[in-house]
Amino acid sequence: MDVEQKIQKSRTKIFKAVFPNTTNHYNTLFGGTAMQLMDETAFITATRFSRQQMVTVSSDKIDFKKPIPAGTIVELDGYVTYVGNTSLKVRVDIFVEEMYTDFREKAVSGEFTFVAIGENNKPVKIL
Amino acid sequence: MDVEQKIQKSRTKIFKAVFPNTTNHYNTLFGGTAMQLMDETAFITATRFSRQQMVTVSSDKIDFKKPIPAGTIVELDGYVTYVGNTSLKVRVDIFVEEMYTDFREKAVSGEFTFVAIGENNKPVKIL
Amino acid sequence: MDVEQKIQKSRTKIFKAVFPNTTNHYNTLFGGTAMQLMDETAFITATRFSRQQMVTVSSDKIDFKKPIPAGTIVELDGYVTYVGNTSLKVRVDIFVEEMYTDFREKAVSGEFTFVAIGENNKPVKIL
Amino acid sequence: MDVEQKIQKSRTKIFKAVFPNTTNHYNTLFGGTAMQLMDETAFITATRFSRQQMVTVSSDKIDFKKPIPAGTIVELDGYVTYVGNTSLKVRVDIFVEEMYTDFREKAVSGEFTFVAIGENNKPVKIL
Amino acid sequence: MDVEQKIQKSRTKIFKAVFPNTTNHYNTLFGGTAMQLMDETAFITATRFSRQQMVTVSSDKIDFKKPIPAGTIVELDGYVTYVGNTSLKVRVDIFVEEMYTDFREKAVSGEFTFVAIGENNKPVKIL
Amino acid sequence: MDVEQKIQKSRTKIFKAVFPNTTNHYNTLFGGTAMQLMDETAFITATRFSRQQMVTVSSDKIDFKKPIPAGTIVELDGYVTYVGNTSLKVRVDIFVEEMYTDFREKAVSGEFTFVAIGENNKPVKIL
Repeated sequence: MDVEQKIQKSRTKIFKAVFPNTTNHYNTLFGGTAMQLMDETAFITATRFSRQQMVTVSSDKIDFKKPIPAGTIVELDGYVTYVGNTSLKVRVDIFVEEMYTDFREKAVSGEFTFVAIGENNKPVKIL
Repeated sequence: MDVEQKIQKSRTKIFKAVFPNTTNHYNTLFGGTAMQLMDETAFITATRFSRQQMVTVSSDKIDFKKPIPAGTIVELDGYVTYVGNTSLKVRVDIFVEEMYTDFREKAVSGEFTFVAIGENNKPVKIL
Repeated sequence: MDVEQKIQKSRTKIFKAVFPNTTNHYNTLFGGTAMQLMDETAFITATRFSRQQMVTVSSDKIDFKKPIPAGTIVELDGYVTYVGNTSLKVRVDIFVEEMYTDFREKAVSGEFTFVAIGENNKPVKIL
Repeated sequence: MDVEQKIQKSRTKIFKAVFPNTTNHYNTLFGGTAMQLMDETAFITATRFSRQQMVTVSSDKIDFKKPIPAGTIVELDGYVTYVGNTSLKVRVDIFVEEMYTDFREKAVSGEFTFVAIGENNKPVKIL
Repeated sequence: MDVEQKIQKSRTKIFKAVFPNTTNHYNTLFGGTAMQLMDETAFITATRFSRQQMVTVSSDKIDFKKPIPAGTIVELDGYVTYVGNTSLKVRVDIFVEEMYTDFREKAVSGEFTFVAIGENNKPVKIL
Repeated sequence: MDVEQKIQKSRTKIFKAVFPNTTNHYNTLFGGTAMQLMDETAFITATRFSRQQMVTVSSDKIDFKKPIPAGTIVELDGYVTYVGNTSLKVRVDIFVEEMYTDFREKAVSGEFTFVAIGENNKPVKIL
């Protein structure tokens, strides 16, 4: 299987309903909750790509372009964008969908870098 | 858009890493946590199909065929299987993937019935 | 102690206040949260009956007859209804009580099947 | 219904399995988690006794006599011990049961004081 | 380092925003959630003072003098008040701050007793 | 009060014990959980500085320099680093402390940008 096929196969999507218990007192999703969901999506994508132990080493600039209101549905979409020797990058987009219309738009986007680790937590080659 | 297209478009997938904080003392995912994830997947599928207010009215028999161990990844896959006058059915399958191999198998499957509700919580026609 | 006494002794009740942080945007308890609470009640009942390692193998049809609004109290009531060779069944009823009146009614009911497991996760005889 | 009958009727029991996700790094239930469960039990007991809006005003000394290890079951048992003009007291005992034996003992005990409040959060007479 | 310096160095502060998902249906912080936060603050203070394994053995009377409304910020402030042979006491005050004014007042105060434990969970001398 | 005094006064510290229920299967704190805690710290700092409604608009590059193992204590330290017309920046450092030694080091650092919003969610001047 070549890299392009592995990227397709490891693409990872997560839907989530934005209920009041994950929103702040402005009634929109917490920035920190969005970041946590993005890191989880990126981690699963990286692991499914490499089938190796992966750890987050950094996140690049994350722009919260649109607020995500309670009573919507979000889809997180993670896909590998770069494969290096011991590290790889995963982009995660968050799309927001209204529940009772077909309206949908991109709300947040960010990129995460992971390193493959082996024995003694040392970086190892991505296979 | 015909029903077949709406079923395709509303198909809803959710990946999740099974970390120790969602497992019981046998180190496998709680049955109740699996049920909660299935209901959430089914709810999002039903809402994205109908774009109406949907409530769970029942779940059919759910078989936990395989235990889901900590340190795996699950994919929940929800899709509409029946559309009636005021109700619809959503099947949800849970697949378990090992993190560090390509092994993957179906672990749990169940079906949920939803009713569309309108003003005063009365059932209304699914459009 | 005979089976009838063990059933009495293992009957397991759980009260819970339905606060806004466990309700959806219709302001009623999530179906999935109700299922999770029922599975936990059933698991404790099965374990207290057998004093063996028990795992959920299936849930039968669960009817959500009445919505459970925020600002109410629920009581889950679990009791063994069948004891086989390696498996047993537990019924769980959910009653909803209004906080500021004596009104109380049954809202949900379901049955769960458990298997006793021993070494190597093999089914063993229920004692 | 006299006070003694109301005390019987409002007695509130909650079973809970102590899974690893509620325990600290000594593998026993957090003191703070025990206190939160006790307050919830006491609140439900007080509300079911008075059917009025009740708020916690204080907790008396709470002794953690026995550690509560992961892999056990606890039963919280709340009952009204004193009824004043605008306040009442609820005692909550926590019993710990081993899962795979009949061993059971009292582990923690504490008392909570509640006040009934009406319009504008002012104390009102307990009926 | 003498005791006074260790008390200063181990003083432990925790800020927290009171969002709707931690409040009850009166829209104020649960008593039990406040107790859990206080125990966590006290545990960290005791551990940072002694650098030994510490377990909560009791809490003294806790007065909830002021309700803590949603949409405020709380600061928990923990400091050692007594050091004995094998036990120590930590006082925890909760201050509530309004978000959009400079108003701030003490809302809750309580004291927790910890014991240092060594091998086999036996009490050991605090160093 | 000048800007320098407001920066001092709004500096916001949060201690947290890293218990097993917030760690992944490598037994270290999730990257996403660290990001959520950092955003919460930054939000409280920004609000306490401005006493206005603040929303996260972006996070800059976050480096996870050191893993944060279970069984440690972290201190988050947030402080305003830049004040513009309608936006401000907050840096958050995470220090990790071992529980049973005095060892302490910086593990993670990141910067968050907030905008003050008024009526209709429009940006307003920071006072």
